[in-house]
Order: sequence, then structure tokens, then C-alpha cells
Amino acid sequence: MTAPVPQTHPYGFAISDKIKHEVHKQDVWSIFSPAGGYVPKDSINLGQGFMNWGPPKYVQEAAQEAIATVDANHYSVPKGRLRLRSALAKHYSPSFKREIDPNTEIVVTSGANEGIYAFEAAFLQPGDEVIMFEPFFDQYIANTTFNGGVPVYVALHPPANASTSVVQSSEWKLDINELRAAITSKTKIIFLNTPHNPIGKVFDIDELREIGKVAEEFDLIIMADEVYDCLTYGREHVRISTLDDLWKRTITIGSAGKSFSATGWRVGWAIGPQNLIHPTLAATTRIVFCTNSPLQEATAAGFEKAAEHNFFAKQVEEYVERRAVFTAELDKVGLPYTFPDGGYFVLVQNRSIKIPKDFVVPDMIKNRPYDFKVSWFIAQTAGVVAIPPSDFYSPGHASIGESFTRFAFCKDLNTLRAAGERLLKLKPFIVK
Amino acid sequence: MTAPVPQTHPYGFAISDKIKHEVHKQDVWSIFSPAGGYVPKDSINLGQGFMNWGPPKYVQEAAQEAIATVDANHYSVPKGRLRLRSALAKHYSPSFKREIDPNTEIVVTSGANEGIYAFEAAFLQPGDEVIMFEPFFDQYIANTTFNGGVPVYVALHPPANASTSVVQSSEWKLDINELRAAITSKTKIIFLNTPHNPIGKVFDIDELREIGKVAEEFDLIIMADEVYDCLTYGREHVRISTLDDLWKRTITIGSAGKSFSATGWRVGWAIGPQNLIHPTLAATTRIVFCTNSPLQEATAAGFEKAAEHNFFAKQVEEYVERRAVFTAELDKVGLPYTFPDGGYFVLVQNRSIKIPKDFVVPDMIKNRPYDFKVSWFIAQTAGVVAIPPSDFYSPGHASIGESFTRFAFCKDLNTLRAAGERLLKLKPFIVK
Ligand SMILES: Cc1ncc(COP(=O)(O)O)c(C=O)c1O
Ligand SMILES: Cc1ncc(COP(=O)(O)O)c(C=O)c1O
Repeated sequence: MTAPVPQTHPYGFAISDKIKHEVHKQDVWSIFSPAGGYVPKDSINLGQGFMNWGPPKYVQEAAQEAIATVDANHYSVPKGRLRLRSALAKHYSPSFKREIDPNTEIVVTSGANEGIYAFEAAFLQPGDEVIMFEPFFDQYIANTTFNGGVPVYVALHPPANASTSVVQSSEWKLDINELRAAITSKTKIIFLNTPHNPIGKVFDIDELREIGKVAEEFDLIIMADEVYDCLTYGREHVRISTLDDLWKRTITIGSAGKSFSATGWRVGWAIGPQNLIHPTLAATTRIVFCTNSPLQEATAAGFEKAAEHNFFAKQVEEYVERRAVFTAELDKVGLPYTFPDGGYFVLVQNRSIKIPKDFVVPDMIKNRPYDFKVSWFIAQTAGVVAIPPSDFYSPGHASIGESFTRFAFCKDLNTLRAAGERLLKLKPFIVK
Repeated sequence: MTAPVPQTHPYGFAISDKIKHEVHKQDVWSIFSPAGGYVPKDSINLGQGFMNWGPPKYVQEAAQEAIATVDANHYSVPKGRLRLRSALAKHYSPSFKREIDPNTEIVVTSGANEGIYAFEAAFLQPGDEVIMFEPFFDQYIANTTFNGGVPVYVALHPPANASTSVVQSSEWKLDINELRAAITSKTKIIFLNTPHNPIGKVFDIDELREIGKVAEEFDLIIMADEVYDCLTYGREHVRISTLDDLWKRTITIGSAGKSFSATGWRVGWAIGPQNLIHPTLAATTRIVFCTNSPLQEATAAGFEKAAEHNFFAKQVEEYVERRAVFTAELDKVGLPYTFPDGGYFVLVQNRSIKIPKDFVVPDMIKNRPYDFKVSWFIAQTAGVVAIPPSDFYSPGHASIGESFTRFAFCKDLNTLRAAGERLLKLKPFIVK
């Protein structure tokens, strides 16, 4: 995500070790954004994942009503407003296959991001290891290291033909033996993101059971990042916490931003057993005290009224159409990709794009992996911005990420079609 | 602030050391709140500091307008929306006596609280010492310890006659030699809260210079928590960052919650030189990513339109009246207090209240300092809830805090009068 540009420190106070590489690195989000001043300003932005529409009308209205009250402009209790916790309990209980207690099994957080951060603040001791699958959501790293944890990486492997053919996201596989091999006496947590950003993989029940078995065997906590749980297309989203005895060791993370097209509301939640929720609540209380009140009310209204508007089913239909439109555009261009089963990203295989020898990339790109160069080339040549995903890999595995470029399709159909039109400019550079 | 109730951990994962005492302590905010279920439900709540009115109409409307857009429902850049940073720069430049650069000298945070947290995340190395004056805002402790810092305490001393007479908040004094004595080779930061919660003290220019001199001498950063900067009554709020060369070592914290009666918006900011702001931005980017967008827009509107509504001057007038009304009520009851020059709290001296020998306090109060018992007695006897401030002291100095009870006067005049009426029930127990 966007981080600040480098600078000199004319009147320098020593900064903390944990922030050092954050401060000195030019991050991928500000390079690959039309607003960043690097890629052409009039590019179509399929980079950072936000929609070019807002939340549903009745959810916006609920926010406006909350703003007109006194109470909803003031502090919430740190665990979250009762109305939202009640709505979450009601919405989630069926898919969690248990009655979720809104008082002890839910905590509202300032976005999913801060929820993950607070959970790690609550549970990590210095040196504790956290396993994450690559590619990972990039915030995981700092969320972990800021809290004294050590990330340990296990790669998801694309199928062998991913470089030449359209493949399914389900074909990306975890090697369970690699997961086992990564575990040490210091391992404390496994991060599991399903539906997955950026692969679009929705882990199936057998894969989840295998991961769960490892968690049981080594007594690990599972952090199930399910922020895209309402965005799966024809494939069932299975919650790992519903399998076997895994509820007791799983904290599940959700986000109003993803669920209601409101990425800027910064309302998220964590659901799990009291022994995981209570310390997470104690941490979030000290980090942010509470989450903004009016947008908690609006999120509650979103869940309360979802059924009457058939909201989640319709939203899925719309995303299925966006996916169809955008992947058809990619087919026209002739680029192979991973067809996603969930979320709103497509990983495009970029090795067939041959960058002309005389194409000049700026210094800040020069020493970066190949995907940075391709993304730069695509932006300059076609006027479409997409994200190089090697930053979602540890250095040891960045070579896997280098072969892909991530496109967000949480944009209206016209934008997706216009982007496809522009991407045709790449055709002369595609070599099969 | 409110923290969670204790629990057993039936399926226990080890929690981090830093969260341990957070998890097991019944916090003062949930005991002393009518909603908490301990004190009488129909008590008048002068405990936690939030207003019983909302933000100004035109600020609410700006929030509603933002909600109706697409853009303001989505991610902001982590440093904060340009409109808000511009409005802050314009509003603050005159009182900071310099042109504040909205691009490099301001970062928007998720409440002042998260701003302080992010600043400490950016600058503290394990074992670094942070000096805070007592009584302190209780979040300071966890903000510091979560980031590996060690709080070091220096008490503000009430005047000798505070137990029998009404005194001025300016009579509470820092002993500069005690500050000097607290400094070690590990000292990194001095926390300065002015206007002060809960004393209501507005540090004067000489006091600030003395503190600044110490910071210069030992090359310390000053964290100037000025969230009540627009709430001073007849006494000038001097920003320590405007004195001598102190700008270069001072980060100043502000809050939309306090400025616009919107404690639940969770919009705050930090202002200072780039060498302090840039690492703080890098930290907040990883902790919360960004602050909620629509209420940033509304806060911007608040500053943009403040002058045309003469907002801040009127707000001060209203608080002066509230202070006059509530202190007159205390005079009628016959309780001595510290007359505040800023903020919206009054510290009442409680030693003259004699709790009857046969009055029974519950177990959770029994082993707490005297002020917990008096606050409990006041709530039960008079139906007015106020906060025992010994939790704003280190154990070594809690005895100073024990003699006081904190009342919030950010309530409408009728509520303050009704509270005064109820407090008359204490009269029979007051012994001079
Ligand atoms: C996998 C994943 N987890 C968490 C988040 C953070 O969600 P939020 O915006 O609610 O903080 C994102 C956002 O992009 C994400 O993709
Ligand atoms: C002295 C002081 N600093 C910081 C804060 C936190 O402000 P915010 O609500 O913006 O996080 C408060 C709130 O009570 C306060 O009293």
C-alpha cells in the first residue's frame, strides 16, 4: 500500500529499527498510481484495489442518518457498537455454523488491516514466527515485524503451464510438506488468506483441512483473512473455522471496505473464540481506542438490509460479469492469466511481453525485479496501470512473482472495456 | 479509556507480555460509566469526556455530502486527504508562526491516540525512556510500552491549599529539577500535554521554555499533545514548538474529536518537521493504512468554514459558561476544586467527603485507591458519575491522585445544573 517517499533527515532523531526499511523505500503503490506523478496521469487505474462506485444508496443514507444524531458522532465502546456487533453476529452465524456471541466473539477494528495488527500486538512475543503464503498481502510483513514477529514464507506454486495458458486459480497449490518444513519451535501463527489476493484462489475443503491439521499438530493459531468472503464466483467459500475443531484456534478477519464498496471507511472486524478476541480487543483499545462511530452504524445497516435488497447475490453477479468482460479483453490481447474464483484481481502472466531493447526505464525501476519493468512498460505503452507483485514475495521467492502483473477488476464495465482497448497496444510486443 | 473485562482463557494461547496487564484489569472507564452496568444506570455521566451534542450543522452536512460522493468513500492516501492537509496548514500556520507545508509537515491519523501510537512506533527502540508528567492521559502508557518504550514519571504538584480551597490550575507546578533528575542516557521523548487533561492547566511561556531548554540540552523529542488547543479560557495557549529552536524537535498532536465535538470520528493529526512526520507517516501507513475518508472531508470543511461562523471563539464562550455554571454548583455543594484554564475537566478535591463507615463497596473497588471508593460513593449517593484519577498516576505517585475526582463539563447547561442539584446530596457527608 502507499508509503511515503524517501527523504533526508536534516535534524535527525534515530528512528526505530522496525521502521527503517519502510522509510527509505519507494513503494509500489505510489509508483503505480496515476496520482503518484510517475506513470501517465491519464492512465486507467487498475492498480490499487478500490471500486469506482460507492456503497449502496441505503448504506450511504444510513451513514448520513448516523451523522445527524448526537450519539453516533461520539466514542463507541472499544469492542464496537452493539448494533454493528449484533448485525455481524446475525449475518455470520449461519456461515460459521454456530451462534456467534456479539459480546465476546466479535471485535470491531479500524479496517481489517488494524484488526490484523491488533491481533498480532496481542499475541506475538519477540521472535515468534508467523507463516505466510506467498504471494501475501504486503501489510502482513510490517504488521508482524512491528510487533516483534518474524515472517516465515511458504510459496503457493502456479501450475507449470501458467506461462503459456490461461489457468485456474485453484491450480495454484500449497505444498503441505513445505508448510511442515517451515514450522519451528517458534512458530505461533499461520496466516491464511482465502479468497486470495492476488491469485483469486478460494481454498477448498481438503486444502483447508490439511492446513488445519498442521495447526492442530503444532498448536498454532490460524489468522483467516477472509476480507473477500462475499466475493466468490461459483465456488463455495469454506471457512476454516467451521472445520473439525478449528474454531478454537482461528480468528477470522472481515472488512466493510470489501463487503460494501467502501474501502475508505476503515471498518473491519475479527470473529473468533473469546480467548483470541479478548486480547485483540485489549490491543485495539490501546492502539486506536475505538473505530469511527457513524460508519459502524452504516455498516450495521448494510448487513441489516442486505437480504431485502438481495445485495450479496447481486454483487456477486456483477463481479462475475466484470470478470468475464475483463478476461475476454485479455483474451483479445493474447495474454495468459490465472482465472480467479474470488476477490477482484487477475494475475496476468507477463513473460510473453517482450520489452524492446531500447526502451528506457527510470532509475527507480532499474534495479527492481522484471515485473516492475513490465508494469512500467504497460503503463507507458498502453496507459493502463497495474501492480508488479514481486513485492508480495520474500526475496527468496520473488522470482515467482516477477512473471506476473496484477490487474484489479473492481471497476465498471466501461472502464474495463476501455482498459482492454488500450491493452491491445501491447499486441505487437507479445511473442508466443 | 474503556478496556475489556477479565476472562478465563479456556483454550489458551500465550498472549504477549505487553498485553498482560491490559487483559486482566477491570478498567476505570467501564466501571464508571452508566452503560457499564455497575453504577446506577440513570446516573448523570460526567465521566468519560464526550459532549452531549454533535458537531456543528455545517460540519455534519459536509460529512453527509462526502458520503454521497464516490471518491470520499474510498481509500485516502496514508498521509491524509489533500483537502484536510491544506485546511490544517491554513488553520495552523498563524499559531505555529510559520508556513506549514501540507505535503511534508502534516500527517492525518486515526484519532490523536493513534497519532501518538504511530509516532512512538516510529521512534522508540526497546528500552528507550519516555517522560510523562502526572497525571497523564492513560493511553500514553500502553502507547509507549507496546512500542518497547519505558515510561518515566514526573509529577505535577498541586498547591498546598488544594485540599481546602479552590485553587487555580496554573498553581499546579512542575519541579524542573525533578524533570532533570528523571533524565537518563536512555531518555528519548518528553510528553507534554497542554492544555492539560485532567488538571486544566495551560502551561505558560516560562514553564514551556524551561522544559524546552531541558529538551535541547539532552537532545530529546517533545511530543506536544495539544488536543485541547482550541479550548482555553482567558489564557493564551502557547505552542512549545514556536519557542526558540524547538520546532525542530517537536511533534504536535491535534484531534477533530475535541475541536469539533466529534469524539467518535477518529480523525487526528500530527504537525512537525519532516524528520518527525515522515517516519510517523511510515508507521501509521502500516498500522491503519489510512484514516477514514468521509470524516476527513468533513473535518476539512470544519476548518474551512470556522472563520465565517466565528466557530472557535463561540465555542470558547460556551465552554466558559459551562465552566462557570458547573463550578458554581460545586461551590454550592461546598467542594474545593482546581479551576481549569483549558479543556473540559474539573478536578474536585475529595478528601472532605467522609464516606460512612458502614458504606459497602464492591470487591472490584475494595482494593483500589481511595478515589475509586469516593467516586463509587458519589455515584451511589448522588447519581453522578465521575472518574477516579489515580489510574492517571504511576503507583509511586498514585497517592496524589487519590485526593481528586475528575468531572467532565462538556455537557449542556441543564445537565450540569441537574448534576449540581444531585451533588447536593453529598453535603451531609462533607466535613471541613
Ligand atoms: C488480503 C487483504 N487483507 C486485508 C486487507 C485490508 O482491508 P482493509 O482495507 O479493511 O484494511 C486487504 C485490502 O486490500 C486485502 O487485500
Ligand atoms: C490529553 C489527551 N490526548 C489525546 C486524547 C485522544 O484523542 P482522540 O480521541 O482524538 O484519540 C485525549 C482524549 O481524551 C486526551 O484527553
